[in-house]
This record gives sequence, C-alpha cells and structure tokens, in this order.
Amino acid sequence: MRVMGIDPGLTRCGVGIVEGTVGRACTLVGVGVARTSSDDPLPTRLCDLDSQLSQYVDRYRPEAVAVERVFSQHNTASVIGTAQASAVAILIGAKADVPVTTYTPSEAKAAITGFGGADKKQMTAMVTRLLRLDTPPKPADAADALALAICHVWRGHASHRLAQAAARRNGTRTGRSGA
Amino acid sequence: MRVMGIDPGLTRCGVGIVEGTVGRACTLVGVGVARTSSDDPLPTRLCDLDSQLSQYVDRYRPEAVAVERVFSQHNTASVIGTAQASAVAILIGAKADVPVTTYTPSEAKAAITGFGGADKKQMTAMVTRLLRLDTPPKPADAADALALAICHVWRGHASHRLAQAAARRNGTRTGRSGA
Repeated sequence: MRVMGIDPGLTRCGVGIVEGTVGRACTLVGVGVARTSSDDPLPTRLCDLDSQLSQYVDRYRPEAVAVERVFSQHNTASVIGTAQASAVAILIGAKADVPVTTYTPSEAKAAITGFGGADKKQMTAMVTRLLRLDTPPKPADAADALALAICHVWRGHASHRLAQAAARRNGTRTGRSGA
Repeated sequence: MRVMGIDPGLTRCGVGIVEGTVGRACTLVGVGVARTSSDDPLPTRLCDLDSQLSQYVDRYRPEAVAVERVFSQHNTASVIGTAQASAVAILIGAKADVPVTTYTPSEAKAAITGFGGADKKQMTAMVTRLLRLDTPPKPADAADALALAICHVWRGHASHRLAQAAARRNGTRTGRSGA
C-alpha cells in the first residue's frame, strides 16, 4: 500500500510517501516539505498549505494518510499553528476519501526504532536504513513524515483495513483517528 | 456589508451573520451552531464541520468572515480542537475568496460593550440590544459569533477595505489576520 506521512507545521510541513506491506521493506516514493511564510496572514498561510499538500495528494495518490497527532504538551507557543496545520492535512485526506490515521510521536518512534524516546538522529538513521537509501532523506525535515508513513504500513495496516470495513458499513469517508 | 462571525469549536461552532455599515445599527441575517460528535474520529469531525460551515457560506454569501483568534492562554485541553476548528473556518472563507479577519475575544468584547473584560451575560445582552431583538439570539452559543460579526462591521471595515486593496494589488485572496 502507498502511504503519505505528514509531519504538520505551519512554517514547515514534512511530507513523505512510501510503499510497502507488513513484513516487507518499504520503498521511498516521494519526499518534500510544504512551506508557508510567517510574513503572510494566517488565512493566506492555511490556503498555501492546503494548496501544496493537495498537490502532493494529487501527484502521489496515497491509499492512506498518516498525520502526527498534536499534543498540548507541545510548546504552547507553536501548538496552535501545528494544530491548524494538522487540521488542513487531515481535511485534505478525509475530503479525498483517503483514510486518515493520527499517530503520536512516540508511536512512530517505537514503530521505527523500537524505542518511543528515540531522538531525531536515531530516527533519521533508521528511516535511511529501512528505506535502503544511500544517504539520509532530504530535506531532513521530512524524515519524521517518512517515519509516520512507515509506521502506518507496519502498525496501521490492520486498523486501516478495519477502518475501510467500517467506512463501507457506515458510509463514512474516514479512518480511525484519535483527537 | 454582510459579515459572518464564527466562534470556533470542534463540538459546537457558533455562526452568526449580520448586515450593517459603520455608524449604523446592524441587522440579524442568520444564526446557528455547527456541531460535531465527540464519538466520531477527528477526520470525520473536521469533514463534518467543513461541510456545515460551507453550507452557511453558500447560503448567506458573506462579504467578510470574522473568526475568533485562538490563544495558547485558552484551556490547553481544548485549545487543540479549537485551533483545528478555527483552521477549518478560516480555510473555508479564504478558499471562497472572502476576506477573513481574526479578532481576540477582548477585541470583540471591547467593540460590543466598550469593555474587553465583559462576561457572557453582558455580551449576550448587548448583542440582543444592538441587533434590536426582542429576545436573546438562540442558540445562545451563537451570541459570540454575532458579536464577532458586529465587531468586524464596526472595527474592521477600514481594515477590510485595506485588505481588499492589498489583495487586488498582490493578487492574493485573503484579508488581514493575526496568528
């Protein structure tokens, strides 16, 4: 399955697309960062982010979207922008009828490194190894997005199928997700 | 001008539409509350909110949208949901080429009651009086949304025209707004 991982942020929003199945190595399909300018008013920034992320979805046509779940424990100065960016990301997937799942940073870290407290360097190293890349993925911001996508392939496949079944049953468009 | 005020919330999102010009009384055009179920996963809730708010915009065709600005001082347990709901609201206006402005609760209160620390009862009483209603607007949740709309008519008219001029100059689609 093809999964798009999104590490939400208003200034920099990591995007990573991988393909894989449970028990097999994932392959890198695409990677990038959506950026908006802090000089622009918020409506312009949200529109810009919506437009850029929509282009990734149109180009790569993922079967599932995995978005990092926003927590109030985050830096309170940036949590509002992060939450707003995550809403844009989640809405794009949901409106495109693609199941959206949210994962905590710990869930993604544990899935990739076996350790929920892994640091950025460890995460990047494992993403590089798991995708069998010669060099760490660039831009570096996108490593977390790739980790979310890999996490979903490995962890979320069962819940994705459950979500699809539930969606068919309920006639709804979206997958499992926490707040 | 016709202004739609939106008091963002994931469970209850107040919507109020008024018409008026600076120095004249505003009139009530429409009022309501968009609701989503806390039992539903977040992608479903954001989609539901998007759909309901879009219907208000389609029905009332506001010339401007005024959204309450989300602060980190808010209850941290609910601030993420409020920020996500505000992103949905702002994006709907911006994507519909309607200028979006954000106001702090204090700005709205000061514009309506002359006092930035006014309580909910005072705000509802003033909104009722300013719109020359016989009884307080229902649902009560929407009083804050109406206050935002009135605030924009009175405070924001100049900035709205500036935003329109800037939008024409820059070829952008959105109005002034803070984070």
